[in-house]
Amino acid sequence: MSSEYKTVEGALVGVLMGSASDWPTMKKTSEMLADLDIAHECNVISAHRAPRRLEAYCAGAEERGLRVLICAAGGAAHLGGVAAALTHLPVLACPMQGWSLDGLDSLLSMVQMPKGIPVATFAIGSAGAVNAALFAAAILAGTDEGVRDRLLEFRRKQSEAVHSLD
Amino acid sequence: MSSEYKTVEGALVGVLMGSASDWPTMKKTSEMLADLDIAHECNVISAHRAPRRLEAYCAGAEERGLRVLICAAGGAAHLGGVAAALTHLPVLACPMQGWSLDGLDSLLSMVQMPKGIPVATFAIGSAGAVNAALFAAAILAGTDEGVRDRLLEFRRKQSEAVHSLD
Amino acid sequence: MSSEYKTVEGALVGVLMGSASDWPTMKKTSEMLADLDIAHECNVISAHRAPRRLEAYCAGAEERGLRVLICAAGGAAHLGGVAAALTHLPVLACPMQGWSLDGLDSLLSMVQMPKGIPVATFAIGSAGAVNAALFAAAILAGTDEGVRDRLLEFRRKQSEAVHSLD
Amino acid sequence: MSSEYKTVEGALVGVLMGSASDWPTMKKTSEMLADLDIAHECNVISAHRAPRRLEAYCAGAEERGLRVLICAAGGAAHLGGVAAALTHLPVLACPMQGWSLDGLDSLLSMVQMPKGIPVATFAIGSAGAVNAALFAAAILAGTDEGVRDRLLEFRRKQSEAVHSLD
Amino acid sequence: MSSEYKTVEGALVGVLMGSASDWPTMKKTSEMLADLDIAHECNVISAHRAPRRLEAYCAGAEERGLRVLICAAGGAAHLGGVAAALTHLPVLACPMQGWSLDGLDSLLSMVQMPKGIPVATFAIGSAGAVNAALFAAAILAGTDEGVRDRLLEFRRKQSEAVHSLD
Amino acid sequence: MSSEYKTVEGALVGVLMGSASDWPTMKKTSEMLADLDIAHECNVISAHRAPRRLEAYCAGAEERGLRVLICAAGGAAHLGGVAAALTHLPVLACPMQGWSLDGLDSLLSMVQMPKGIPVATFAIGSAGAVNAALFAAAILAGTDEGVRDRLLEFRRKQSEAVHSLD
Amino acid sequence: MSSEYKTVEGALVGVLMGSASDWPTMKKTSEMLADLDIAHECNVISAHRAPRRLEAYCAGAEERGLRVLICAAGGAAHLGGVAAALTHLPVLACPMQGWSLDGLDSLLSMVQMPKGIPVATFAIGSAGAVNAALFAAAILAGTDEGVRDRLLEFRRKQSEAVHSLD
Amino acid sequence: MSSEYKTVEGALVGVLMGSASDWPTMKKTSEMLADLDIAHECNVISAHRAPRRLEAYCAGAEERGLRVLICAAGGAAHLGGVAAALTHLPVLACPMQGWSLDGLDSLLSMVQMPKGIPVATFAIGSAGAVNAALFAAAILAGTDEGVRDRLLEFRRKQSEAVHSLD
Repeated sequence: MSSEYKTVEGALVGVLMGSASDWPTMKKTSEMLADLDIAHECNVISAHRAPRRLEAYCAGAEERGLRVLICAAGGAAHLGGVAAALTHLPVLACPMQGWSLDGLDSLLSMVQMPKGIPVATFAIGSAGAVNAALFAAAILAGTDEGVRDRLLEFRRKQSEAVHSLD
Repeated sequence: MSSEYKTVEGALVGVLMGSASDWPTMKKTSEMLADLDIAHECNVISAHRAPRRLEAYCAGAEERGLRVLICAAGGAAHLGGVAAALTHLPVLACPMQGWSLDGLDSLLSMVQMPKGIPVATFAIGSAGAVNAALFAAAILAGTDEGVRDRLLEFRRKQSEAVHSLD
Repeated sequence: MSSEYKTVEGALVGVLMGSASDWPTMKKTSEMLADLDIAHECNVISAHRAPRRLEAYCAGAEERGLRVLICAAGGAAHLGGVAAALTHLPVLACPMQGWSLDGLDSLLSMVQMPKGIPVATFAIGSAGAVNAALFAAAILAGTDEGVRDRLLEFRRKQSEAVHSLD
Repeated sequence: MSSEYKTVEGALVGVLMGSASDWPTMKKTSEMLADLDIAHECNVISAHRAPRRLEAYCAGAEERGLRVLICAAGGAAHLGGVAAALTHLPVLACPMQGWSLDGLDSLLSMVQMPKGIPVATFAIGSAGAVNAALFAAAILAGTDEGVRDRLLEFRRKQSEAVHSLD
Repeated sequence: MSSEYKTVEGALVGVLMGSASDWPTMKKTSEMLADLDIAHECNVISAHRAPRRLEAYCAGAEERGLRVLICAAGGAAHLGGVAAALTHLPVLACPMQGWSLDGLDSLLSMVQMPKGIPVATFAIGSAGAVNAALFAAAILAGTDEGVRDRLLEFRRKQSEAVHSLD
Repeated sequence: MSSEYKTVEGALVGVLMGSASDWPTMKKTSEMLADLDIAHECNVISAHRAPRRLEAYCAGAEERGLRVLICAAGGAAHLGGVAAALTHLPVLACPMQGWSLDGLDSLLSMVQMPKGIPVATFAIGSAGAVNAALFAAAILAGTDEGVRDRLLEFRRKQSEAVHSLD
Repeated sequence: MSSEYKTVEGALVGVLMGSASDWPTMKKTSEMLADLDIAHECNVISAHRAPRRLEAYCAGAEERGLRVLICAAGGAAHLGGVAAALTHLPVLACPMQGWSLDGLDSLLSMVQMPKGIPVATFAIGSAGAVNAALFAAAILAGTDEGVRDRLLEFRRKQSEAVHSLD
Repeated sequence: MSSEYKTVEGALVGVLMGSASDWPTMKKTSEMLADLDIAHECNVISAHRAPRRLEAYCAGAEERGLRVLICAAGGAAHLGGVAAALTHLPVLACPMQGWSLDGLDSLLSMVQMPKGIPVATFAIGSAGAVNAALFAAAILAGTDEGVRDRLLEFRRKQSEAVHSLD
C-alpha cells in the first residue's frame, strides 16, 4: 500500500492535505520545516474520498518514525479528526479558507473536537500553516537539541528584526 | 463484529449517534420513524472514539438491507461525513446543539462537505431530528406504496390541523 | 401551464433555481447528473416572484415521474422550503453564495426548516451543487441497479485518484 | 375556506404566526395594536405545513379590508416571504428566537429577501413584536387622523417618561 | 435651513444616506421609485456628522408632504433609528455593505431597534435598496389607486417573466 | 430642562443608559468610579425615545464640567454614537447583552462607527462596565495627580493578588 | 534600548503596530493626528515576536511624555491588551482586517478584555484608524485649549460639508 | 519570585488560568493528567493583571523541567499568546466560555495567532480542557514509554466502550 502515498526516509513530520488545492498554503509549512531542517513528507489524502488510504497511512505512521502529523483541510474539515482517531501521535490541524465563510467552517470542524480525541488547531490559512510547522518544531525540541537550537535561533532573529516604516 | 452494535431484522434505516447524550434528541427520530411504521435500528458509535466499529457498521449496511443512514453528532461533528465516506447509501445528518456555539459548529461540520461525498443536513436539534425521519420516509416512499400512503396521511393531517389561540 | 417551464421526457430529477444567476453554479449539478446518466430537467422558478408557477410545477412533479427535486436559491432562500411544502418528494437544497454574508443567510434559510417539512441541505456554492447530484443518485441507486453501478464506479475512481504535488 | 382561519370584522391588520408557540411573543403585537385602538385579527398559519390555507388567507386579505400583514416565524422563517409573494399589501416580519442560534436564522430568513418582493423586518423577539405594531400604526397614520393622534400621544408619553434609578 | 438639503416639490418619499458612497446602491431605490412614478427626493445627511441637519429635515418632513423615509447607512448604521426618533413617519432602512463584516454590522444596527421606535429593515445592499422602494409603494398603494395599479402591473410582469437557461 | 435629568455637582463623568434595565450592569461602573473617588452622575436617557433630552444633556455637558461620557445600550445601541455626534467630549460605550444575539448586535452598533465621530467601545456586559470606569480614570489621570495615584494603587493591588485554587 | 524603536521629541501619542502590513491603514491615524497638529510617533512592535521591546516601550512611555497609546493589530490581536497591562496610560485599539474573518477576530481579541485592564476599541480597518486619532484628540482637548480648538474646527467643517449627488 | 506561584517538583505540564473562575473547567485537565499519571502544576496568572508574574513563570519553565504549558482564558484570551511569546515550549490553549458570545471570542483570540508564534488551540469549554491534557500526553508519549502505554490503554478502553440506549 506504500505506493499509494509518498514516504520520505527519516521523516519526523507527515503533512497531509484533503485536497491538492491546499498545497499553495501548505507549501509554507513545508518550507518552514525545511528552514528548521526537519525531515518531513507531504501527501494529499482526503478523509472522505480516500478513507482507506488515510487509514493505511495512519496505521504505519508511528512505526515509520513519524512523530507529528499536520492535517490541512477546508469546509467540513474532518481530516484532522479522522487522523487523530486512527493514531495516538499528536495531530495538528490547519483550517483552509475553503470556498465560503472565510474558513470559519474549517476552523470549527477542526477545533471543536469532542472529548477524547484531541486535535491541536492553528489559525485559518497561511498564518496557521507556518505556525503548525513551528509548533511541530517545539514538540521535537523537547528531546532534540538540534531542533531546539535552530528553533531558538529562528525566534531570536524574529524578535530582533526591526521594522522601519520609511 | 455484529455484537458491537445492535441490529434490527428488516431495518431500513440505521440511526447512529456520536454520543449517548444525543439520544434524548434522536429519540424523536426513532419515534417519527415508528409512527410511520418504518423498521429501524439505533446505535451510539463515535467516529472518533470507535472508528473501526463505524467502519464495520457501514461496510455491512447495504447488505443487511439498510436503505438510509441518519447520523447525529455535536461539535466537530464528523460522523455523517465519515459514514458517507464508507458507504454509498444516502447519509442524513442531524447537527446536535453540543456544548457551545448553539450548534453552529455541528451544522457547519456536517453541511459544508467538500465535493464528492454528500451528506444531507437538517436543522440543528430536535426539528432536524424529526425532519430526518420524514425525509427518510420520503426516500423510501419513492418505491414503497405503504410508506408513501402513511407519509401522505401524516402530511394531510399536519396541513389540516387548525391552531386556536384561545 | 406546461409552457411555463421546460420538461424533459423521462426526467427523474427536477433542478429548480430561484434566479438565472444561479445557473453557473447549478450547471455543475446538471453535469454531474449527466455524467451519471440520470435524466433531469432544469428551470428557473422563483418562489417569491412566481409562486403560482412553482405550485403548478410541484403539483405535477410526481405524476410526471420526477423522483427528486433539487432547489437552489440565495439570500432568504425559500425555494426549497416552499417546494417541500407543495410535494412529498425528497427536496434537496443548494444554498447559493448570494450578494452578501457569503451564503450564511441562504444556508440558514434552507437548513433550519421547522419540524414537519424536511429539506435536505448541502454545502454553500458549487461543492453543494455537485453533492446534491451525487445524493440524488444515491437515492435512486436504492432501487435502480444502473445508477447504483455508475455511482459506485464514480466513487471507486474518486478514491483511487492519487494527487501528486510535483 | 373562511372557516379555516379567524377573521375580525373591520380588521386593518392581520397577524400571522408560523406556530402557536409564537403567540406568547406576538401577543405583545396584539396588545400594542389594541392600545392604539387598531382592529386586527390573529391566526396561526404555517407557510410550510398549511400552504394552501396561507394562499387563501392572502388572496382575500385586501378585499376584506386588511391594510397590513404582520408575519412571525422562527428558524427558516419563510412566512413573511411567502405571504409577500401572494399579496401586494405591506408585509411586516417578526423573527422569533426559535430553537437555536438565538434568532439569527429567523432574522436572515426574513430580512435577506431577494429583489422584487419586499418584507419589512423588525428586531428578533418581543422588541420586534411591539415595533411591528407601532410601524403598522405609522402606516395607517398616513391617512387616518385618529390613528395618527393616538400614535403621537403614545410617542409623546414615551418621550416624557423619566426613569429614576433609586 | 432648507438650503442645507435638497427638496422636491410634491415628494412622497425622502431617501436619506449617511454617506455619498451609498449613492451607487441607493440610486436603485431612486430608479425603482421613478419607474413607479413616485415623486421623491434624495439627500446625504449623516446622523453622526450632521445631527442638526437631520433634525431639521425630519422636523419638516410630514408637513412638506413626505409619507415615507428611506434611510441607508453602513457600519454602526444609526441613521434609520435616529430619524425614527425624530418623526412618526414610517422609516425604512437599507443596510449598506460598508467596509467590513459584509454588512452584518449595518443590518444589526438597524434591525435590532429596541421597543418603542420601529425601523423597518430590508436586505443588505442593492436587493434591499430596490425592495425599500417597492415597500414604500406598497404603503402608498393603500390609499393611492394610481400607485396601486402601477405596483400590481410591475408585480404581474415580474411574475410572468420566464427565464430561459439557453 | 435640567429637571429632566439628574446632575451631580462637580461630576467629571456622566454615565448614560438607554434603558433602566441597564442599571444592574452599569451600577458596577458607578461603583468602580466611586472606589476611585471620581465624582459622577447616572441617568437613563434613551437616544430613541428621548432624543431631545439627550441633546440637552450633551449640549450642557462640557460647561457643567463633565470630562467623559459613558454610554450603555443594548440591541441597535445608538446611544454612544448619538451622544458623540452632539459633543466633542470623549464618549465611552458599553454594549449591553440585550434580548438576543448575546450582545453582538450592541457591540457592532457601537464599535463600527464610521469615520469622523469616534466612540471608544469596551467589552459586552459587566466586564466592559467596569473597564469603562477604569478607562475614564486613565483619561483623568493624565492631568489629575490624585486620580493617577488611586488608579496606580488599584492596579498594583490587582497585580499582586494571588489566586489560590485550594 | 531606545535604539530599538523610534521616538519623537514632544510626542503626546504613541502609535504601535503589530506588523508593518498595518501601516497603510494606520498611516491614516498619523495623518489625522498631523492634521490636528498633535505630535506623535509610529513604531512596529509585535506583542508576540518582540515582547521585551514592547515592555521597554511601555515602561518609558509616561515619562517620555506620551499621554495616549494607539495599538493596531490583526488576527489574535493582543497588542492593545498587552500594552494596557504594562502601562496605565489610556490604550486605544484599532482592529485590522487581517487575513480572514474580515477583522471579526481582531475586533473580539481587542474589545472583549476581561475586567481590570481596559482597552478602548474602535472600528475595524481605516474608519477605526481615523477615529482613534480623533479620540486621542478628544482626550487631549480636555486640558489643551489648542487641541480643543482644532478639534472643534474639524468637527464644525465636517458638519457643514454638504454632499451633492449630482 | 517563586513564591508568587505554586510549583510541583517534577512537573512536566504547567496549567495556567487567566482567572480563578476557569478552575471548575480546568480541573478536568488536571484530573485527566492525573489519570495518566503525569506530574503537573496549576496556577492562576492573568496575562493582563499580572504580566510580570507570567513573565517570571515562563522564564523558568523549561529549566524547571516543564515540557508543555496549557493556558486557559476567556474573552479577549491573550494568556496563550503571551505565554508563547515568552517561551519556546509548546503552548496549548483552552478557550473558556466566558461571559458572552459563548466562547467564540476566546476561541478566535487564541487560535488566530499571527505567523511566528504558534498556540495550539482546543475546543471551547470542558471538551477542550480534557483534550488539552490528552494532547500533552501525546507529546510526552513520543519519548516516554510509560506515558505512551497509559495513553494507548486509555484510548483502547475508550474505543471499546459500548453505549447502550436502554
